[in-house]
Amino acid sequence: MCPIKLIGFDLDDCLFDSTGLSYNARIKGIDAMIKLGLKIDRNEAVRIINDIVQEFSSNFSKHFNFFLRRLNQLNDNIEFIRHNDRYKFIAAAVMAYHEEKVSSIRLYDDVETCLSKLKNLSIKTAIITDGLPVKQYEKILRLKIDSFFDLIIISDEIGIKKPNPELLKYWLKKFNVKGEDAIYIGDRLDKDILPANLNNIHSVYLHRGGKYDKCDADVKIEGNLKPDFEISSLNELFDIIDEI
Amino acid sequence: MCPIKLIGFDLDDCLFDSTGLSYNARIKGIDAMIKLGLKIDRNEAVRIINDIVQEFSSNFSKHFNFFLRRLNQLNDNIEFIRHNDRYKFIAAAVMAYHEEKVSSIRLYDDVETCLSKLKNLSIKTAIITDGLPVKQYEKILRLKIDSFFDLIIISDEIGIKKPNPELLKYWLKKFNVKGEDAIYIGDRLDKDILPANLNNIHSVYLHRGGKYDKCDADVKIEGNLKPDFEISSLNELFDIIDEI
Repeated sequence: MCPIKLIGFDLDDCLFDSTGLSYNARIKGIDAMIKLGLKIDRNEAVRIINDIVQEFSSNFSKHFNFFLRRLNQLNDNIEFIRHNDRYKFIAAAVMAYHEEKVSSIRLYDDVETCLSKLKNLSIKTAIITDGLPVKQYEKILRLKIDSFFDLIIISDEIGIKKPNPELLKYWLKKFNVKGEDAIYIGDRLDKDILPANLNNIHSVYLHRGGKYDKCDADVKIEGNLKPDFEISSLNELFDIIDEI
Repeated sequence: MCPIKLIGFDLDDCLFDSTGLSYNARIKGIDAMIKLGLKIDRNEAVRIINDIVQEFSSNFSKHFNFFLRRLNQLNDNIEFIRHNDRYKFIAAAVMAYHEEKVSSIRLYDDVETCLSKLKNLSIKTAIITDGLPVKQYEKILRLKIDSFFDLIIISDEIGIKKPNPELLKYWLKKFNVKGEDAIYIGDRLDKDILPANLNNIHSVYLHRGGKYDKCDADVKIEGNLKPDFEISSLNELFDIIDEI
């Protein structure tokens, strides 16, 4: 009899390559502007847009707008963008960005098999994620994983955000399961591993090479930031279940 | 020698069926929610969403959000939407709405021929439109009409909005043309015909059956609200040019 009754997953960079998708979508946006006549070195443009994402957050809606504003402040090598052209460039970039996001989103290869196996083991599953609720559900619906999970919790829905341990406590309560009978899998030490550990949930750090993978490597791993397990594929999850 | 040197067009409901496209996109949104399990009569749902658009304007970004909020306030026949489901329904509706808007936008049949003929007559053309600049440029780029026009003016770009006659005056100045040598074509008496008349521009009211066509019919047509010409196809424009 498997002691694990419940497994929770983070969404972005855990079930799909969110970092890579956004990165590629931004490049499509840059390419669309260059195709429309924007005079800029492509690599330089990519560097600038990624700086903007880092400074203003990835959920900021005006990346390309700020990109063009910034170009106008930069050195003489970059042609000044006429005010009337700015909106045309932004529109082209936004269109290309969204087209890429819609058409290229896909699950990591190991997700479907993992979820089927968990179903066979009668382990209940959940997605527990931060982010804008409508945007997060758009991803879930496009990935067609809505029906795979027993519960989807988006922090904004219940007003509790990672790393507040109450979020995972809410999840445990929903299924009437103790932390020691649950696993939580995420890609961030600060937002995923910490609250799992504080709830005595078995914490699994999943290395997907996403944007937080490196940052987390810089975090001094100690105390409640140390995951119980580290994996780089969901296939390894079943060894962990066996071990527990 | 043609006395007309310049012709300006409104965008929405003049060059493409904006009213119809938005209406159909909203229905796709409703259908997506029903498919996902929303229990509501389709006609009732369409009526409600259209009420919301009328009350909160068509550029409001939370139509489906407010639609579900309103359902929760309505009578007992409509099932209460659980808070956690709301975002999923909204996401599905927004996805379907945008997919329809992106895939089904197309020019009215008479536009391309008209623009080619005007080019042959060496008449300069412009789009002069209100609306959110990035959204308006998205439409223009998707319709692939960017290169057809000598100038595109979106009111937000220059800070002057219809029906302020300064908007059309700005346009005339750009081409150094007098009002009497220009034609402006639009679907609204209050926003298009009025400012054209105030600038002595030949005003053409284009009946496309859009959302303002009926409203305008209710306006008491007198003084500066009376168009110089009324047409229901751009093919008729050339008779007007001949007449002038």
